[in-house]
Amino acid sequence: MSDQPQHDPLDAFVPGPRCTVTGASSGPLAGVTLAVKDLIDVAGWPTGGGNPDWERSNPVPTRHGWIVERLLGAGARIIGKTATDEVSLGILGENAFTGTPLNPAAPDRVPGGSSSGSASAVAGQACDIALGTDTGGSVRVPSSFSGLYGIRPTHGRIDFGGITVQAPSSDTVGWFARDADLFARVGEVVFGTSVPSALPTRLLIASDAFGFADPEVATALQPMLARLAAVVGPGEEVTLAPQGLSVWQWAQRVLQSSEAWQTFAPWLDAHNPRMAFSVARGLVMGSMFTDHERTRAALMREEARARLRHLLPPGTILAMPTTPFPAPKRGLPLSQLGFLRERISCLTSHGGLTGVPQVNLPGATVDGAPVGLSILAGRGQDEALLGVARAFAAAC
Amino acid sequence: MSDQPQHDPLDAFVPGPRCTVTGASSGPLAGVTLAVKDLIDVAGWPTGGGNPDWERSNPVPTRHGWIVERLLGAGARIIGKTATDEVSLGILGENAFTGTPLNPAAPDRVPGGSSSGSASAVAGQACDIALGTDTGGSVRVPSSFSGLYGIRPTHGRIDFGGITVQAPSSDTVGWFARDADLFARVGEVVFGTSVPSALPTRLLIASDAFGFADPEVATALQPMLARLAAVVGPGEEVTLAPQGLSVWQWAQRVLQSSEAWQTFAPWLDAHNPRMAFSVARGLVMGSMFTDHERTRAALMREEARARLRHLLPPGTILAMPTTPFPAPKRGLPLSQLGFLRERISCLTSHGGLTGVPQVNLPGATVDGAPVGLSILAGRGQDEALLGVARAFAAAC
Repeated sequence: MSDQPQHDPLDAFVPGPRCTVTGASSGPLAGVTLAVKDLIDVAGWPTGGGNPDWERSNPVPTRHGWIVERLLGAGARIIGKTATDEVSLGILGENAFTGTPLNPAAPDRVPGGSSSGSASAVAGQACDIALGTDTGGSVRVPSSFSGLYGIRPTHGRIDFGGITVQAPSSDTVGWFARDADLFARVGEVVFGTSVPSALPTRLLIASDAFGFADPEVATALQPMLARLAAVVGPGEEVTLAPQGLSVWQWAQRVLQSSEAWQTFAPWLDAHNPRMAFSVARGLVMGSMFTDHERTRAALMREEARARLRHLLPPGTILAMPTTPFPAPKRGLPLSQLGFLRERISCLTSHGGLTGVPQVNLPGATVDGAPVGLSILAGRGQDEALLGVARAFAAAC
Repeated sequence: MSDQPQHDPLDAFVPGPRCTVTGASSGPLAGVTLAVKDLIDVAGWPTGGGNPDWERSNPVPTRHGWIVERLLGAGARIIGKTATDEVSLGILGENAFTGTPLNPAAPDRVPGGSSSGSASAVAGQACDIALGTDTGGSVRVPSSFSGLYGIRPTHGRIDFGGITVQAPSSDTVGWFARDADLFARVGEVVFGTSVPSALPTRLLIASDAFGFADPEVATALQPMLARLAAVVGPGEEVTLAPQGLSVWQWAQRVLQSSEAWQTFAPWLDAHNPRMAFSVARGLVMGSMFTDHERTRAALMREEARARLRHLLPPGTILAMPTTPFPAPKRGLPLSQLGFLRERISCLTSHGGLTGVPQVNLPGATVDGAPVGLSILAGRGQDEALLGVARAFAAAC
């Protein structure tokens, strides 16, 4: 049972025996089934990180990650560990070692990553909720591509203990759900607070982000925007990134890649691990930025943070497309994927740069494939976003 | 038998069923057992290239490589395909996918690469001879590290059909043997000529190359140099690379890496293959040279060619250490291996740059590990080197 390999039609779970852990017998999440991205420690199970040499070169953890412990204590039951892009370095969800999980909502397309298996498992109804990490978009992108609720919480608000680090100044841990009520309830458990029934009263619409998305995406999101306005209040157009979304993206790329290189260089040196060419190339590029570039990028980060502090006081949320297009097809050549990746990160880089919380709302499709609408709030206002998501779903 | 996996204590052969092909029933190589580097086609067997995604993305060849056909026609019998550094990109012989072959002469050290399995199989007496390729040193280095006769033939002299290309302006196919007579006989079959009994009469000694090697290596090679002088004539000290061995190494690095990038970029783009980090990093670095750098390197190549035309008229050979040190220990971190690799290529880059033939003579050790003495001749004078090797062995 628990330690026998099971057939996995989603390819969402890591190969081998299925990790299962029973939580507390009662609590706000009693009966809720949970999948855990294989970058987050579950005691007694290897943390594979989507790479055979990562798994081999790291000890099997003896303690649960903080958030795992928290959810188990609230009654959730772990039913498996899920596939991830190698050591979280990827945004599309393709992994040649463990396989690319199915996108149940669009089987010919990638699931999005790096929390690919978690999104696939929830979308494929293998479990109720799943944990993911988000450094540069790894919860938000698969939420958008798979049609799920997904949250990137405020940076630094949730203990990152027992989770594989990529770029500490941007790393966060979040979760996916199909149901907005359950999605909010997980937040109450994790934050130890209540999601307020009073909603934000001011809605900003990021016109630069809508302009950057494919026109079909901007069009497909209009009914969701209208529903959001019905819940929160009429929308007001603003520019998210006065310096340019691509300038913010450049800054996040420099900072995140430099930190990732710092993080993984000792492992690369000691183990010369096998990895997909694209992953290795990304790490090498991260080693090449200069101090001057990092300084320029850090200054731009200060500007981005100031901008979001200005835009997002308590009571205000901002709406934007989560991704500029729905999931790309599976198996595209790197030369095509590279630019798609860069475009995606133009709509996600504000997260790593500024640390504000963001929730993906499902509900639109383009060419039959999901694409999500995001809402952002000021730092620490995660519960406000969960409340809006709940009200938004109730208004459907 | 032939298609059952066999236990391979050397780890010299590629995993899986052992490739066996019987050659002609008579001929100059009748009864000779042959191993073939897994970058060279044997009809009906995959050409794995030391990388699972290379094997997967290339069709099983329907024809033998030219040199394989030639040796089979002379009576040789194939007993296996041998491990290689991934797609020939490596000089030490470590491969995380197929395993690192044993260096039978120094079990705690690497075998040298990229023709690692071929050297291991011959040194371990699993076969009489083995084929390798040499672009930047891939026959010469494992010959030196494993204590074997090994030849990098004149560039362009042997048909490269049915062999995986790396950098066409430097790629060659050569062979290993323990026995100098058989080593020469293979040359007669491959070239369709006779190895002359008349030997070169002039011996040059590359003082810059001896100076570049570890002092213990230079000392250990002195008895071999003395024996060589007894066979050919008294040695005369010359400078191999007036511009600097490291300058020649830089030029070869630029040209070879740029060509390797050209060769493999379409495969990388289409398949995003899994590879060791170090291999991917080398390819990425090869993509970054500028046209200006390639032009400077090509000019330096012209100077190197002119230098060797000047030094090596017919009847003259040049002696130098094959490698600056014996084989490094297995499993060193990349930060240590990187500089060792660069130092090795300072003594091998003349091969790819100028195309002259080179033979490694075994016979010395440092700390119990083999290190070889190389002899070079002018382009097309391969047979002269084989004749010297035979006479050198007879003089022992």
